[in-house]
Amino acid sequence: MVKSLGSDNHSGIHPKILESLTKVNYGHSPSYGTDDLTQEVRALFKNQFGPSAETFFVFNGTAANVLSIKTFLKSYESVICSADSHLNLDECGAPEAIAGCKLLPLPSPEGKITVDQCREALIRGGDQHYSQARMISITQPTELGTLYTYEEMKSLAVFCKENHLYFHIDGARFILAAAQLNKSFKELTEDIGVDVLSFGGTKNGLLFGEAVIVFNKEKTKDLKFFRKQCLQLPSKMRFLSAQFKALFTNELWKEISMKECSMALYLAEKINSIKELEILYNVQVNSVFVKLPKAWVKPLRESHFFYIWNENDWSARWMMSFDIEKNDIDQFVDKILELKGGA
Amino acid sequence: MVKSLGSDNHSGIHPKILESLTKVNYGHSPSYGTDDLTQEVRALFKNQFGPSAETFFVFNGTAANVLSIKTFLKSYESVICSADSHLNLDECGAPEAIAGCKLLPLPSPEGKITVDQCREALIRGGDQHYSQARMISITQPTELGTLYTYEEMKSLAVFCKENHLYFHIDGARFILAAAQLNKSFKELTEDIGVDVLSFGGTKNGLLFGEAVIVFNKEKTKDLKFFRKQCLQLPSKMRFLSAQFKALFTNELWKEISMKECSMALYLAEKINSIKELEILYNVQVNSVFVKLPKAWVKPLRESHFFYIWNENDWSARWMMSFDIEKNDIDQFVDKILELKGGA
Amino acid sequence: MVKSLGSDNHSGIHPKILESLTKVNYGHSPSYGTDDLTQEVRALFKNQFGPSAETFFVFNGTAANVLSIKTFLKSYESVICSADSHLNLDECGAPEAIAGCKLLPLPSPEGKITVDQCREALIRGGDQHYSQARMISITQPTELGTLYTYEEMKSLAVFCKENHLYFHIDGARFILAAAQLNKSFKELTEDIGVDVLSFGGTKNGLLFGEAVIVFNKEKTKDLKFFRKQCLQLPSKMRFLSAQFKALFTNELWKEISMKECSMALYLAEKINSIKELEILYNVQVNSVFVKLPKAWVKPLRESHFFYIWNENDWSARWMMSFDIEKNDIDQFVDKILELKGGA
Amino acid sequence: MVKSLGSDNHSGIHPKILESLTKVNYGHSPSYGTDDLTQEVRALFKNQFGPSAETFFVFNGTAANVLSIKTFLKSYESVICSADSHLNLDECGAPEAIAGCKLLPLPSPEGKITVDQCREALIRGGDQHYSQARMISITQPTELGTLYTYEEMKSLAVFCKENHLYFHIDGARFILAAAQLNKSFKELTEDIGVDVLSFGGTKNGLLFGEAVIVFNKEKTKDLKFFRKQCLQLPSKMRFLSAQFKALFTNELWKEISMKECSMALYLAEKINSIKELEILYNVQVNSVFVKLPKAWVKPLRESHFFYIWNENDWSARWMMSFDIEKNDIDQFVDKILELKGGA
Repeated sequence: MVKSLGSDNHSGIHPKILESLTKVNYGHSPSYGTDDLTQEVRALFKNQFGPSAETFFVFNGTAANVLSIKTFLKSYESVICSADSHLNLDECGAPEAIAGCKLLPLPSPEGKITVDQCREALIRGGDQHYSQARMISITQPTELGTLYTYEEMKSLAVFCKENHLYFHIDGARFILAAAQLNKSFKELTEDIGVDVLSFGGTKNGLLFGEAVIVFNKEKTKDLKFFRKQCLQLPSKMRFLSAQFKALFTNELWKEISMKECSMALYLAEKINSIKELEILYNVQVNSVFVKLPKAWVKPLRESHFFYIWNENDWSARWMMSFDIEKNDIDQFVDKILELKGGA
Repeated sequence: MVKSLGSDNHSGIHPKILESLTKVNYGHSPSYGTDDLTQEVRALFKNQFGPSAETFFVFNGTAANVLSIKTFLKSYESVICSADSHLNLDECGAPEAIAGCKLLPLPSPEGKITVDQCREALIRGGDQHYSQARMISITQPTELGTLYTYEEMKSLAVFCKENHLYFHIDGARFILAAAQLNKSFKELTEDIGVDVLSFGGTKNGLLFGEAVIVFNKEKTKDLKFFRKQCLQLPSKMRFLSAQFKALFTNELWKEISMKECSMALYLAEKINSIKELEILYNVQVNSVFVKLPKAWVKPLRESHFFYIWNENDWSARWMMSFDIEKNDIDQFVDKILELKGGA
Repeated sequence: MVKSLGSDNHSGIHPKILESLTKVNYGHSPSYGTDDLTQEVRALFKNQFGPSAETFFVFNGTAANVLSIKTFLKSYESVICSADSHLNLDECGAPEAIAGCKLLPLPSPEGKITVDQCREALIRGGDQHYSQARMISITQPTELGTLYTYEEMKSLAVFCKENHLYFHIDGARFILAAAQLNKSFKELTEDIGVDVLSFGGTKNGLLFGEAVIVFNKEKTKDLKFFRKQCLQLPSKMRFLSAQFKALFTNELWKEISMKECSMALYLAEKINSIKELEILYNVQVNSVFVKLPKAWVKPLRESHFFYIWNENDWSARWMMSFDIEKNDIDQFVDKILELKGGA
Repeated sequence: MVKSLGSDNHSGIHPKILESLTKVNYGHSPSYGTDDLTQEVRALFKNQFGPSAETFFVFNGTAANVLSIKTFLKSYESVICSADSHLNLDECGAPEAIAGCKLLPLPSPEGKITVDQCREALIRGGDQHYSQARMISITQPTELGTLYTYEEMKSLAVFCKENHLYFHIDGARFILAAAQLNKSFKELTEDIGVDVLSFGGTKNGLLFGEAVIVFNKEKTKDLKFFRKQCLQLPSKMRFLSAQFKALFTNELWKEISMKECSMALYLAEKINSIKELEILYNVQVNSVFVKLPKAWVKPLRESHFFYIWNENDWSARWMMSFDIEKNDIDQFVDKILELKGGA
């Protein structure tokens, strides 16, 4: 069966993660996170992210992002983010409707925002007519398959501390960032002063499950209650914990990350010389954005589904899941070459 | 290992449901509910609940209830419900915070509310100072392990139609009601005029997953968007669909229901003659509520966990999961008799 | 023209307060509360309520109550109040919709709730499934025309401090309480530990205008922004400030209070001997609640409008405005006697 | 006393409007809008705006705007507006927090948005991940003192109808638009298909008061209840009605408009030849935006307060109130010339 290039949530459950579900499926266990396994896995997160990391599992990424905001901000405060961010474009207005907060989206040609842009956005502090900027949220890796460098992350974190702002990372694919930047999770979060991280599971081989990690003990009580009130308290929690445990066991997360990123690079290299295709951004994680001839879109999508990212110029996103293999890519490139030949 | 009597979410995944997860875990599939399996299972729900049934899967029961309200009511409208309802006591104020609606809780000695009570609650219609009653929500089976009769359900449904109210059922354990009342799902919903049902999976052997079923085509667009905005759109939807398919295959739901209910009755019969125990409500589904000597609580809970329902009189809830067996009950009763002997 | 007994907002503007509007209507003045007069009047409130009193003017009483809640509570926290309170019955669900908070209404035969009731309501602290009680709100004077004694207020305040609860007073008619209890505003608020007060103007002779007074400096920033966001920042603020200044000048508030309360007592005395009428509660401020023969309702309302408080027993509320005079009462009683004679 | 050029809410109450308050201040009147005068004035609005116009008075402009959105949109729907709009910049996030809706701000060099821009913004219809555009909101006159032409208004209205969008006008200074475009209120609203208008009073000589006018009978029930729930139901309504009646009597609104606009033009003409000043936009209503030498800002503001509109280039807004006179302008220009001379 041909694999989709549509999204890393078109694949299923990684075999080792599915196995973890089966293994933990015996007997009874207290619900809502009071079970032993959940305690163990929350401690595991402290090992990975640092001793101040308090982890709360939730169902999906929208929830992780919205709860991050709701826990830290009041409704008269706003979030500086990229105009391309999932927060701004793909949450159906959830930050506004559920947290009550305004977003301040900034243009971001490569999916990234800069300290200078953020500084300019800090206007009208104390003015009661204006929603007060109180958080910077970045996506790492970005929605355009690029990465903030470690130094860029640090600069943003420092800027936040200097300006009384909270620093949030939407890390739906954070494992790829850690693998590619060759940094530990702790180095990329607690050490530089991140306040809260949406740590993704679903796009990285889990059936479902994300973690909100707060690095601020004062906020844990609020998060505990907001999680429940915002419809995000899983009852059979052990099955979330088991999956995350599997993800960390023997660095499975790194194995998955390396595989996906190398496949994206492999594809990028193979199409690099095809003059009809223009690779749009640096290929730094698991996706390749390309401008392609409009006539190729339909036939290509028939065999290998993918999304058109921008309908104005028919640019596309080709994204790698954990289970993509070289021969899947080869097949896809063959198909492209066939179209090219026919052109 | 001793099984808990704490809740039907202390058990794990029913083996046939776990099997369904494994079976569907191959290849790629579109996300967010556009996959073929989800279409198939939504059609299956139409078979079970009637042709007007439109089904939306969500993560948990709180979400199913809150989305039911948010889809049908405006924030100036209120929900008539039992004071004992999960909606009122166990959602951490989510109906108020997420749907913006007020609840009008009515006293309900056996967990049930009556048409007469609802009629009395219909005051100040049109008065802009008063939140306007617009929905009746019942829990079937109730939080106290009792059942509305088919006739009681019908009367409430008729009352709703006559009074321009929507009729919602919190059916976290709705399969037990259908099994015990010996009615089809359609007879208990579409046929009598239910507007929206929270149909539970998690407490009935699923890993996770509930369904909001609306019997009103006009509301499907709102529900589609509110589901996403309220953080409830699962991406790898096929794994929810597969579980519900398993639940309906070969009437697994009925097998689970019969087992749980017969175990509750078995326990009730065995303790009936123990004069220190007082069974509080009709045992009609999978739980037994008892007043027990305070001194027994601690030793009993040490081996078989359960919740104290009311701390004022030390009454307890003993609840059956799908995997409870006669010898689990026998063990538990032996423990009781031991305490009685020692008394 | 016959005066209404319907409500103390059926009267117009007290002449001295209208005069204050005219006096301040010259030249230009900065808007939104930065004008000198507003600063002066906010200082005046400190004189009356104590040095910690921070005053924010808003448009109406619903707003004062909802902002009091929104400023102090998070959406997972709830407010203990009387079932008869305006908050519960007459705000169209605004506390729930705008602050997101649940109310915990307690029965209150005379409009008052007790420390014992509040203690019982403090259940499930720390339980994430249950909205956490965090505020007690009382109405003083109550909706039923009764008064908490000074000692009752103090006990509730002490209970709040002991239990980490905020203490709010809905004081739409607070001037009557101060006058009747013969205490200063400070004695009834800052001195006993009130956290926030809705201080009414509209029902006491103002055109419009209420004040939220917080006794907690930390909360002033939140209130400042929430006031604007909740649609309550008046632009021509000097006209609110002028009215409140007039209310405090030469103790006009006391004059108004005394007049209204004495008129209520005068009415109560005059009808005391009429055996067809039953006075329902202690007449302690400016209203008289009576059960009256159903047949009298229509003819009486034709000349002197009033509200039926409870349609089940045809009990009524007769309420005094600042401009009611003895001869208005005499006329009304004559009408009653006429009906009695005709009976 | 020197008059402010800060805003048209720095002035007080127009004498004829103050007189109307005094005239209506006798006897008792039912509250909350059921009084005869309010009925009369609501009928007056039908005369001015067309038979479908249903008018609801509220306290301020933020409220009028937010209620317009909340009445017409669901929280998953969004509002297309100018990036310079009050809605986007000056409501402290109220549309997001109170209506739950997202804004889609478009760049607008002269304060105006175009049909072409709106067409481009209509993306991802039906996509559950994306907040659905459902309303266009324009400010007329704009925040930059410019006017949409009658034809531009009509084109936007037609575009709305064609695309299933609601058309809202923020008309805080709508009387100026009607006067300058020389059109009746009906021609600018009902006739072209406006759905809802925020009709301003406070900036046009009222003490306080705005009107939400809906041209869609179906929405009146929602608006009635949302007004109360959103803290906007004035109790002594007759005093709002009286002011609006005065505004329409003998076309006072036109007199005020003509005066303010002519004063702005007078100022613009007088400074036109001063080469240090650059007038930024077409002076079409009651404000003049200028770039001025930074050194002039402080001394000028000392005598005649005004706001710096953009701190980056020290541009300023000079705004006319109803009570500004030629000699006020002359004084101000003398001061400028003095500075110029000294330069």
